[in-house]
Amino acid sequence: MELKAYLAERRQWVEDALEGLLPSDEAGGTILKAMRYSLFAGGKRLRPILCMAGAEAVGGQPRKVLKFACAIEMIHTYSLVHDDLPAMDDDDYRRGVPTNHRVFGEGMAVLAGDGLLTEAMVVITDPATWQGLEPARVMEAANLVMRAASFRGMVGGQAADLEAEGKGGELSDVEFIHMRKTAALISASVESGGVLAGGEPNQLTALRHYGMRMGMAFQIADDLLDVEGDPGLMGKPTGSDEAKGKLTYPGVVGIAQAKAKASQLVREAIGIVSTLGPRAEALVEIARFVVRRVS
Amino acid sequence: MELKAYLAERRQWVEDALEGLLPSDEAGGTILKAMRYSLFAGGKRLRPILCMAGAEAVGGQPRKVLKFACAIEMIHTYSLVHDDLPAMDDDDYRRGVPTNHRVFGEGMAVLAGDGLLTEAMVVITDPATWQGLEPARVMEAANLVMRAASFRGMVGGQAADLEAEGKGGELSDVEFIHMRKTAALISASVESGGVLAGGEPNQLTALRHYGMRMGMAFQIADDLLDVEGDPGLMGKPTGSDEAKGKLTYPGVVGIAQAKAKASQLVREAIGIVSTLGPRAEALVEIARFVVRRVS
Repeated sequence: MELKAYLAERRQWVEDALEGLLPSDEAGGTILKAMRYSLFAGGKRLRPILCMAGAEAVGGQPRKVLKFACAIEMIHTYSLVHDDLPAMDDDDYRRGVPTNHRVFGEGMAVLAGDGLLTEAMVVITDPATWQGLEPARVMEAANLVMRAASFRGMVGGQAADLEAEGKGGELSDVEFIHMRKTAALISASVESGGVLAGGEPNQLTALRHYGMRMGMAFQIADDLLDVEGDPGLMGKPTGSDEAKGKLTYPGVVGIAQAKAKASQLVREAIGIVSTLGPRAEALVEIARFVVRRVS
Repeated sequence: MELKAYLAERRQWVEDALEGLLPSDEAGGTILKAMRYSLFAGGKRLRPILCMAGAEAVGGQPRKVLKFACAIEMIHTYSLVHDDLPAMDDDDYRRGVPTNHRVFGEGMAVLAGDGLLTEAMVVITDPATWQGLEPARVMEAANLVMRAASFRGMVGGQAADLEAEGKGGELSDVEFIHMRKTAALISASVESGGVLAGGEPNQLTALRHYGMRMGMAFQIADDLLDVEGDPGLMGKPTGSDEAKGKLTYPGVVGIAQAKAKASQLVREAIGIVSTLGPRAEALVEIARFVVRRVS
């Protein structure tokens, strides 16, 4: 398969569906503008693409889980808006444009994040989303995603990240943070697609373990890009993790070891998901792509 | 019925259920402590009590919707934590104790709010919550609550409130804000209870309209207490709305008119919900109680 074309096509599906789910509307006021500002700031849409690929890997139709997948992108975007806040990572740029609070102010940015998170739940529970899907399965998939977003996952990882800032830490600390902050939602994206498509327990286990390893590798790659990446390509300055005293994988084990770890995780992820056969080809290619970004 | 004893009993149900849903756990770290700090700061638990009363008003069992009702309280608490932030209302005290960000810091308070909001959705989608309820009805009730919490409701009301600060406004502006910021979630609390208990469309309409009026009356009473209340009883200083240039009902129409409006809304609410018969007695008494707080 041609991954670049595949990703471009799926990304367009997500853009179009998001536009339909959260259309521009003057009556929505500043808050809707602020929500849309970050939602349409040009992300890779990796998580919704993974959700659809998870559905396909167990024999489902990707289009049937598209709206649910878009809700995951809203959750991801809310987390970026809140992470960028002055009281958190205090970032001025994201994807090449000023961060939400730099444009709309801090209070409105908190609310824009809240608006995106509640909107994800509005979308998930909307009959238009779960049409043609079994309600009990939608609940199960939603529970999985929400647990990954909760204090057990993303919120907990960000809290640990905040507490670790400037204090340093060990490998186990950075793994604790990365697993929760990044890998949990990536894994839930893949697995929830499988759940919605009616995957068997052993298939779902494979998707979950693939997602955990892929998510970890993705975050290590992100850490590495902050050290070695091209700021022009990334739309934000590099070296910011070190400047802030952030706990990162290369910061703890060095660049060479971090690269080796990312490669190993991707190999494991591919091995696990290959058991699902040719329908999992996209997941294999996406994992290869993640590690190619840095090696 | 003896409202005081009724409210005390139901409040205890909610306290116990919340404790079971979000138990203390050292492994949960600072984030869980911060979430629990605000969740167990001694609220009236009005919204979950209204949700259960909504179920009863259409012939349902209150215990069957208790966990769902607790999720609404988590949503309410998240909104208080974020509203109190320095970038928003910048409040130092709430219910007699320092606000979340005064104890845990601003970044952690943002995350505590996020943690409570995601936890609400974890609870709603947990099979233990919807055991014995129809999944499609739980989805419908959840959608109703989430819309009320979204930019169409609570988040939108808070955003408008933020923008209006210090600018003044008319009666239509304050009604726009109060309807979204307060009445929307109160109305959704009552109606979702009715939905979960299998209420008929005309019954649900009555619950919704009751909730809107009761919620508006509740917010007007809150505004009035900020002008005339006893700071010792309320656990926070009075006069803060005026000091901040907040748009309030008595600020726009005066104290006497605001009281008259609250009384009128409660009369209407009682008239509407009385059509449901004696099973709606608790809702009638709660509405009377709301206006008694200020008259």
